[in-house]
Amino acid sequence: MITFDTGPDRYKHWKLTFDGPVATLSMDVREDAGLSPDYKLKLNSYDLGVDIELADAIQRIRFEHPEVRTVIVTSLKERIFCAGANIMMLRGSSHGAKVNFCKFTNETRLAIEDASAHSGLKFLAALNGICAGGGYELALACDEIVLVDDGNSAVSLPEAPLLGVLPGTGGLTRVVDKRHVRRDRADFFSTLVEGVKGKRAVEWKLVDRIYPTSQFKDAVQERAQALTAASDRPAAGSGITLNPLNPTVTDAGFTYSAVTVAFNRDKRTADLTVHAPAGRQPSTPEEIQKTGDQFWPLRAFRELDDALLRLRVNEPEIGTIVIRTEGDRDAVLAIDRTLVAHQSHWLVREIVLFMKRTLKRLDLTSRSLFAFIESGSAFAGSLFELALAADRSYMFHDDDEENVIALSPMNGGPLRMSNGLTRLQTRFLDDSAKVEEILARDREFNAADAEEAGLVTFAPDEIDWDDEVRQATEARAAFSPDAMTGLEANLRFAGPETMETKIFGRLTAWQNWIFQRPNAVGEKGALKVYGEQGRPEFDWKRI
Amino acid sequence: MITFDTGPDRYKHWKLTFDGPVATLSMDVREDAGLSPDYKLKLNSYDLGVDIELADAIQRIRFEHPEVRTVIVTSLKERIFCAGANIMMLRGSSHGAKVNFCKFTNETRLAIEDASAHSGLKFLAALNGICAGGGYELALACDEIVLVDDGNSAVSLPEAPLLGVLPGTGGLTRVVDKRHVRRDRADFFSTLVEGVKGKRAVEWKLVDRIYPTSQFKDAVQERAQALTAASDRPAAGSGITLNPLNPTVTDAGFTYSAVTVAFNRDKRTADLTVHAPAGRQPSTPEEIQKTGDQFWPLRAFRELDDALLRLRVNEPEIGTIVIRTEGDRDAVLAIDRTLVAHQSHWLVREIVLFMKRTLKRLDLTSRSLFAFIESGSAFAGSLFELALAADRSYMFHDDDEENVIALSPMNGGPLRMSNGLTRLQTRFLDDSAKVEEILARDREFNAADAEEAGLVTFAPDEIDWDDEVRQATEARAAFSPDAMTGLEANLRFAGPETMETKIFGRLTAWQNWIFQRPNAVGEKGALKVYGEQGRPEFDWKRI
Repeated sequence: MITFDTGPDRYKHWKLTFDGPVATLSMDVREDAGLSPDYKLKLNSYDLGVDIELADAIQRIRFEHPEVRTVIVTSLKERIFCAGANIMMLRGSSHGAKVNFCKFTNETRLAIEDASAHSGLKFLAALNGICAGGGYELALACDEIVLVDDGNSAVSLPEAPLLGVLPGTGGLTRVVDKRHVRRDRADFFSTLVEGVKGKRAVEWKLVDRIYPTSQFKDAVQERAQALTAASDRPAAGSGITLNPLNPTVTDAGFTYSAVTVAFNRDKRTADLTVHAPAGRQPSTPEEIQKTGDQFWPLRAFRELDDALLRLRVNEPEIGTIVIRTEGDRDAVLAIDRTLVAHQSHWLVREIVLFMKRTLKRLDLTSRSLFAFIESGSAFAGSLFELALAADRSYMFHDDDEENVIALSPMNGGPLRMSNGLTRLQTRFLDDSAKVEEILARDREFNAADAEEAGLVTFAPDEIDWDDEVRQATEARAAFSPDAMTGLEANLRFAGPETMETKIFGRLTAWQNWIFQRPNAVGEKGALKVYGEQGRPEFDWKRI
Repeated sequence: MITFDTGPDRYKHWKLTFDGPVATLSMDVREDAGLSPDYKLKLNSYDLGVDIELADAIQRIRFEHPEVRTVIVTSLKERIFCAGANIMMLRGSSHGAKVNFCKFTNETRLAIEDASAHSGLKFLAALNGICAGGGYELALACDEIVLVDDGNSAVSLPEAPLLGVLPGTGGLTRVVDKRHVRRDRADFFSTLVEGVKGKRAVEWKLVDRIYPTSQFKDAVQERAQALTAASDRPAAGSGITLNPLNPTVTDAGFTYSAVTVAFNRDKRTADLTVHAPAGRQPSTPEEIQKTGDQFWPLRAFRELDDALLRLRVNEPEIGTIVIRTEGDRDAVLAIDRTLVAHQSHWLVREIVLFMKRTLKRLDLTSRSLFAFIESGSAFAGSLFELALAADRSYMFHDDDEENVIALSPMNGGPLRMSNGLTRLQTRFLDDSAKVEEILARDREFNAADAEEAGLVTFAPDEIDWDDEVRQATEARAAFSPDAMTGLEANLRFAGPETMETKIFGRLTAWQNWIFQRPNAVGEKGALKVYGEQGRPEFDWKRI
């Protein structure tokens, strides 16, 4: 069982050090400390375990170190920055493991860009040596890339020529869409095993600057200072500690403080319930800071995030997640008001951004999502985003109309999807007036109102409820899991595409296709024979 | 060997009739006239042969019938509009055949939308009965959908629940992105074998109008008249005839009047050469109309289009297409001037739109494209788009600087890619000033100029040319064909995504993945066991 719980004192593969506003995150992968003993993590190559530490480090810099403005991403190995994803690990992984690995590494790199765009945290990739494949894709996620000019160190994307797969962690997309490398140069570069170094790397915009070995260290510090000067993070202030979540994990489910997951293995479903907070909640930045990681939205969304990650990697046969909420709706709305009122405070900002990333993780989770809005539910404001993220929602139409949902300003902008729209905008793509009208309403929606407004899919009454939700869940469980994955990946992302959605749509979908093809994973496929004697044998037919 | 040459008098599956400004295109598929005897095309289900006729009919309406303003797409079978792609055909097809089939049907449906958007030709889907899967996807490509309300006729996308695959001919994309069906309703609809009919179909925006059987025929005519009134096609005027291309096709290649294709089968490459026109060319709409389909740009691009289609379906092992041009560069530029000067004339408009579609077909051809710009070449204006469409271009740097390229206003807008940008804009994504500067230049670019301006990838001189282009071609031929397909599908479409690119990126890539998965195509996969005894058996792991 893979867990996502780690911390700097437990990192095996990274060193995190601080020097005022500059943090340095140094890759120093332990060959013998991979998630599996089946491979050695040579030359700073990585597996999911290495990336879990990276994701954790970035998260902690955001919450625990508000004084940091720039993160230098570099390596402690001589003449090697990073050799990319470990090939023996990929070779030995199931299709599902490969796909989940790539999804998580993509989310981590997007979290780096999110921190840059929204938290004023700038990332400097200091490439002290060879930077290949996923190593270069990590650099591409940073704001600036500097490369040592030692006659040997190059950046490269050798996946296609060497392994017959794509640079699938955003590499192809970021080269042309972020760094605006000319597409013909990108084509040449991506077929060149040895990569590009020196002046050509700068001229082609693959890196921003090169420095001779003798000047490299000083230049990196200088560039870090320049990035620091441009940041809007608070100049001082103390962070909060992200303590371990310590869920109770059994074969029956996961139990956290505000999130529970219960499996119905015979039905291949999971009941995921988010519990609203009880009692008075912090309402000022000072109180929130004092409450730290126990402040409900941070705690609940950290738990939700962890639950989704565990579900993805450890529970592949759970096809449908039934999402419920329960508890004090008004307490959720009160917290939403606090978050919106103080959104410019650094910690509130980080909490809202974390909620946003968690909801994006939900959008990208390849399980069918049904929201059941039942009596006692708390689908209000931020929590109503869970229903909007679902493929369908069923709202119990009770006679006394006590089952209601409510919106808040949190539904109007702070929690945008990766397509750049709010979930309400994506829902009503052609009707921005309707979105405004719904957000402007100053009272709750009972089931009839919600159905009329288009906020829920169906609103069965007491006579129909049990049969309807049971049949829907059973029918879903009988469909081809692959067809559902493809269906959801298309319908969830209506509207515009962004670099972010392109990475998960165009790039990832093609990569997953290749990961399934005999030319990559067959007995004589390129990924299978790499490092062995003999050459790959291809079916030459172009598809 | 599949050919794309047909005409109304040879159609087996469609009837094309005319009544002034209204054409009626009626599907009446002959069960026993599929491309293969292995399946029967029951219930107006279709294979590539049926779609080739559809594509031809739309093309002919554009060129041969400028008086037509509205096309009614309907069926001659009672109570059945169309059952979609033939399942037995899909089941028996190779992976490559499935992918090529979907690509062509997608291009045909996009050509319908292109005719609506740019030629003022409106399409009315008159659903006189059951409309399932690909049948509904054809309707989705039309401007308006009317459905008979007979208590039985429904629209449906049953692919996912019935066959474990996606509605991959744009269905999922158009439902949410074109018709703005709410994504949760789209989810429900796309898992419902029996589909949606009557008032709910209208309420959910799946169709525009419903009519009882007794009123259906009159209502269709009435709606056709309404669409006709809104069109800007010329009220009168005679069309031109699209005569058969009659290429010489041998095992060594294809020879047309302005296009030749020669295979190097041992190298898995094809040399595709486009020949510029010679002598004086028509320069007024009247002359163009008189020259008809022999007018060089129409003739050359029809030949190019046909060559690409034949390459795709009949020559799967040709991995790289080396594109050359030769002849009188100035003649090409003169024609470009004529096209731009008279672009509002209906026939010139159709010719330019056809050139645009052909170049999009090239962008979407999953073969590596190298442009070799050698002495005597004619890479000017419209023909330079071929070099811009290539994954790479090599320009011979001759001592006397006689090998030059030239741009024209045709590079500045009329031939946009499916991402909505010109190929120059896609090439210089971050630098619109550079695009302007290049377009404003009033003289040709020799190899040094072209390299400096970024218009070609490499410009080797006489000493290096032979080795460099040979090595590049040989290296390309050695890579995994799948990796190259994925690489090119990502790098060619830098920049924004549109509904059109989403269909070929997100939707098609996921569909191709599913087409490769055992849950669809394995021994017990849903596509394999459909119609047989027994149920599909799925690997329940979610990917």
